[in-house]
Amino acid sequence: MVREHLAEMVEKGLVNPTGLISHGRGEAFDYLMGERSLEPSLVAEKAAAAYLLRAKHPVVCVNGNAAVLDPKNLIALAENIPAKLEINIFHRTEERMELLISYMESEGAKNILGRNPDSRIAGLNHDRALCTKEGIYDSDVIIVPIEDGDRAEALVSMGKIVISIDLNPLSRTSKTASVSISDEMTRALENIMRFLKEMKGNEKEISDVISNFSNNDNRKIMIERICNSLMSEFEKGEN
Amino acid sequence: MVREHLAEMVEKGLVNPTGLISHGRGEAFDYLMGERSLEPSLVAEKAAAAYLLRAKHPVVCVNGNAAVLDPKNLIALAENIPAKLEINIFHRTEERMELLISYMESEGAKNILGRNPDSRIAGLNHDRALCTKEGIYDSDVIIVPIEDGDRAEALVSMGKIVISIDLNPLSRTSKTASVSISDEMTRALENIMRFLKEMKGNEKEISDVISNFSNNDNRKIMIERICNSLMSEFEKGEN
Repeated sequence: MVREHLAEMVEKGLVNPTGLISHGRGEAFDYLMGERSLEPSLVAEKAAAAYLLRAKHPVVCVNGNAAVLDPKNLIALAENIPAKLEINIFHRTEERMELLISYMESEGAKNILGRNPDSRIAGLNHDRALCTKEGIYDSDVIIVPIEDGDRAEALVSMGKIVISIDLNPLSRTSKTASVSISDEMTRALENIMRFLKEMKGNEKEISDVISNFSNNDNRKIMIERICNSLMSEFEKGEN
Repeated sequence: MVREHLAEMVEKGLVNPTGLISHGRGEAFDYLMGERSLEPSLVAEKAAAAYLLRAKHPVVCVNGNAAVLDPKNLIALAENIPAKLEINIFHRTEERMELLISYMESEGAKNILGRNPDSRIAGLNHDRALCTKEGIYDSDVIIVPIEDGDRAEALVSMGKIVISIDLNPLSRTSKTASVSISDEMTRALENIMRFLKEMKGNEKEISDVISNFSNNDNRKIMIERICNSLMSEFEKGEN
């Protein structure tokens, strides 16, 4: 069903055809995780919630795949933090930007940024560098679901805390991000919102979660879990 | 480049949009393999070559993704065995069949089957069951690059030796096939052709290769190799 929906969104011009290929790459990793949030996914999601609560200028950055996969939870996350919501796409055309922004608005987004970019992400070429000053440019903590490696690197270089949601724990985005969440996007968004609710106002817990989190250690555990899952999946098939 | 080519082939109607998603899933596994033929891939490719040389009615079965990814090597494989070449697609329309057959012919294919199906693959619903008697239906050994699990199961149930090329060693196709090659398609086709050349006429070696091959053991080794590759990829990133 998700696949047919994405294919339809390609026809409508909201998703670039190559977005289907990256979705497929994600599916493979989700499959390896048994299509559930593993313990290291939850650890990263809790750290993400802590950073977002601590942020002065948090931003939820939305690309084409993310927008059409789960607009409602992206909007709900931005409202719950609260954070600015900005559309930022790799294959940028004005027409596609307008389609995506209208789509998010039809799903309930208010004050969505991206229509009138007035800044650039440093170190990125082409139109994909375009962003707004009030949103991405001035953000201190930014969550980038399904991001490309270049942009994740550029945002980290700008000194931002970058929270990625990327099913591949070895992708360039995951290697680069400050908090690398390897989980399916909808599950990740819902888990983060649960942690936001749990920790809101509890400054001591927020500080503890941030200081106890090691992204590198957590990614290593994630990869070990994927291997265990692979082997047990194989053994199930033998019966 | 491959991605842009596939996206273009979607626009031309040769590839179904969901074919891009399955390509992406394959890419993820290729990435885990370090984008090279691992030793268990080669073991399966040699077994495939042995079965194809031993076959009475070998068939190379081609779907949309396979056709546009590497038509030349598919044609070369069919000529080298020699085997019949048949187009068989999941999302079948007469228009798409004609586009794919014409595409393969423009790439040099002769006597390609699939235009006028006169048989059905037992146990499959819908038009994707359609095949030719002289090709798929009467085959004893059939190589199916990038196949869906249903069709692989149906072909095995018909008593055929099914050789799959599927990057995911845990897919239903890989679990079902008689010889499961987990490798990128072009590498797999080229390796099989090398083994065909090496073994042609050597009946003793062909028999030995077939009797020494255990698909289940080989898949297990493949999964262990993927895990090793994941861990070493992670450790490289730590430096």
